[in-house]
Amino acid sequence: MNATPPFKRLALIGFGLIGGSIARAARAQGLAGDIVITARSAQTRARVAELGIVDRVVETNAAAVQDADLVILCIPVGACGAVAQEIAPHLKPGVIVSDVGSVKGAIVRDMAPHLPKDVHFVPAHPVAGTEHSGPDSGFPELFINRWCILTPPEGTDPDAVERLRAFWAALGAKVELMTADHHDRVLAITSHLPHLIAYTIVGTADELAQVTSSEVINFSAGGFRDFTRIAASDPTMWRDVFLANKEAVLEMLGTFNEDLSKLTRAIRRGDGEALFEHFTRTRAIRRGIVDIGQDSAAPDFGRPHAQLAQRPD
Amino acid sequence: MNATPPFKRLALIGFGLIGGSIARAARAQGLAGDIVITARSAQTRARVAELGIVDRVVETNAAAVQDADLVILCIPVGACGAVAQEIAPHLKPGVIVSDVGSVKGAIVRDMAPHLPKDVHFVPAHPVAGTEHSGPDSGFPELFINRWCILTPPEGTDPDAVERLRAFWAALGAKVELMTADHHDRVLAITSHLPHLIAYTIVGTADELAQVTSSEVINFSAGGFRDFTRIAASDPTMWRDVFLANKEAVLEMLGTFNEDLSKLTRAIRRGDGEALFEHFTRTRAIRRGIVDIGQDSAAPDFGRPHAQLAQRPD
Repeated sequence: MNATPPFKRLALIGFGLIGGSIARAARAQGLAGDIVITARSAQTRARVAELGIVDRVVETNAAAVQDADLVILCIPVGACGAVAQEIAPHLKPGVIVSDVGSVKGAIVRDMAPHLPKDVHFVPAHPVAGTEHSGPDSGFPELFINRWCILTPPEGTDPDAVERLRAFWAALGAKVELMTADHHDRVLAITSHLPHLIAYTIVGTADELAQVTSSEVINFSAGGFRDFTRIAASDPTMWRDVFLANKEAVLEMLGTFNEDLSKLTRAIRRGDGEALFEHFTRTRAIRRGIVDIGQDSAAPDFGRPHAQLAQRPD
Repeated sequence: MNATPPFKRLALIGFGLIGGSIARAARAQGLAGDIVITARSAQTRARVAELGIVDRVVETNAAAVQDADLVILCIPVGACGAVAQEIAPHLKPGVIVSDVGSVKGAIVRDMAPHLPKDVHFVPAHPVAGTEHSGPDSGFPELFINRWCILTPPEGTDPDAVERLRAFWAALGAKVELMTADHHDRVLAITSHLPHLIAYTIVGTADELAQVTSSEVINFSAGGFRDFTRIAASDPTMWRDVFLANKEAVLEMLGTFNEDLSKLTRAIRRGDGEALFEHFTRTRAIRRGIVDIGQDSAAPDFGRPHAQLAQRPD
């Protein structure tokens, strides 16, 4: 017999990669008595009903949060303020309201003013994902060994924070607490700037006059293809991230530009020693990431390689 | 019974990722009667002898090329000129001399003047690799479905070009011919600029005062870890690439900087429409790369995911 689930009713607003993965993992782990979801598009709602992995699909945000004791917004950052306003009158006292947005300062600013006093607001950000999106893209293992950062505003009920921490831990995540402001700086460098750079270089390659698109695609295994993966991420989500974390992204971009100028100068001057020194230093960071299990040690991310066909005799 | 191998003796100078993969694949495919290799470091030579995958390990470049009918330099671009000069007096008339360098203009400029008239010089570049290096890093499947670009100078014997084409095809590669100059522009955008950008951003992350190294490493799954893979590539090889392809890299870097300024301006002005339009366009390129089999369609490059442990009751 199963233990009592820690939440009676889990409501998810939005069912993309993250929402869909939470639903699948929460169900697998028995974390909620029932799971109710809604999504803005009728097509997504119909697909989720078809998939049969939640208890109920409803048409409105208001209906979704009814009687829920954990509500998680799994929608782009820019949409969270309006949804908070919309669900506020329908929330049960004592409910934990959370989100999964990649920016936390803007989420607190946009959502907190709308939420009633008897509701526990605990913003969260699971640092996990793939380049895929939509209701079919989620899978229950997505959060295993990934970090989930909680940024409870000062004065948040510690018991609510602890319950949300336990929820994410049960999904397989390692949980850390920090301020929203610090979160936004950390993610600006580990996630937002890499995406901006990748989006930029893929766009640059697409527009060149001297090199055709098919050459770019054919010879992409020289390094370029690695960038195309994150430049294939959901455009709405990423538009909102850059608008919501403008200040920290622009600051990191400033530092990046200075460093790029330094390396450019070394190339222009033929300063091989400076290049070698820099390229040696960056190897250590990769080792650190692989050592703590945040990436695969297999060459080429473990991409599959075909077998060698025998040469005809 | 096996067919006669297309080359009596294959000599490889250098036994890193590429040299080691050629040796393994050529042996698996029976492309040479015997395979002789040498490497600059005694440690590498000892390791190759231990691995037992070639017929003979010799101590000098001169000894390696003795009686070979295919010689391939598998060493950093910057070392090719001096090695060409060194081996020139020991080459058999009619031998095909090739290389695997990521830059082709500089290779032709540095090697061609040293080679005797009765030698066929066919520069080559297999667009394949991983972030690993050293004698143990090679594997026979590395070149399968990857492109190998040949850049024979005008007037090269077509029969020699055809023999080298067939050699690379037997290793599993798709072969294309182009001028050295065009090659260097194509690779500047598909390989050299991506590496430069990756090296830069990993360096930037390492130097930040506000975000600790352990935070960068912990939260790298948000995108940053993808960049650390190519920024872990061999420093000597990459130093030489940037010095040897300076002009094309600086030109592509100029275009990249313009594009980055445009996106930066859109962020600063809060122009969500411009960001969304750009982020939508870049998805198509990823699709193109996956469609022609130059990358895996699996989410996250097919990185493995651990199983979800059951919640204790």
